[in-house]
Amino acid sequence: MKVYEHPDLTSISLPVVMQALSDPCRLSILRELLDQGRPMACNQVPLEISKATRSHHFEVLRNAGLIRTEVEGTKCMTSLRKEEVEGRFPGLLELVSSSEADSES
Amino acid sequence: MKVYEHPDLTSISLPVVMQALSDPCRLSILRELLDQGRPMACNQVPLEISKATRSHHFEVLRNAGLIRTEVEGTKCMTSLRKEEVEGRFPGLLELVSSSEADSES
Repeated sequence: MKVYEHPDLTSISLPVVMQALSDPCRLSILRELLDQGRPMACNQVPLEISKATRSHHFEVLRNAGLIRTEVEGTKCMTSLRKEEVEGRFPGLLELVSSSEADSES
Repeated sequence: MKVYEHPDLTSISLPVVMQALSDPCRLSILRELLDQGRPMACNQVPLEISKATRSHHFEVLRNAGLIRTEVEGTKCMTSLRKEEVEGRFPGLLELVSSSEADSES
C-alpha cells in the first residue's frame, strides 16, 4: 500500500508555495478542496487533464505542504491542510479563493 | 531613452503573479520596496547577485504587474504598484511581508 509523505509546514518556504500555485490546474484543485471543505478522491476534482498530469499536480501540492493524501481502502482521499496552511501563510487561502477561476485562462 | 512597459493589472492572472514570486530574490525585492515605501534605484535594493540577474528579476516582477520602473534622468527608479496590486490581489502583499525573509533560504 502506498504511503504518501507530507512535509512539516515549517520546512516549507513561501517561494515553494508560490511555485506550487503558479499553475492554473493546481489553483483549481486547491479551490475545489476549499469550496468542498471535505476530503476528495483525486478523480473527483473536475479537471480535463490526463491521469498522469493530475497525479503530478497533486504531488506538487503535496510536496509544498498544501494538501494531504491518505489511502482509504481502494481510494486515495485528499484534503486541504487548511489550519496548518493558514497558520504558516496567513492570507494565502483567501487570496486563492478570492481570485476568480475564469481569470486564469 | 528606454521606456519600460507596464501591463494592465486586469490582464494579469494569479498564476503569473505566483510564478513571479516563486523566487527568493524577487520576494526580497518586493519586500524591500514594501518596507521602504518609496521608489528605489534598482541597485539600491540589497542583493548579492549580478547586474544581469538583477535586471532579469526586475523584468519578471514588472511583467507580472507588480512594480513600475521609470527613467528619471540617468537613473531607473522602481516603485511598487501597491494600490493596484492590493485591489487586484487582496492579501498578496501582506502575505509577502508577513513571511519572514530568512525562512526563504
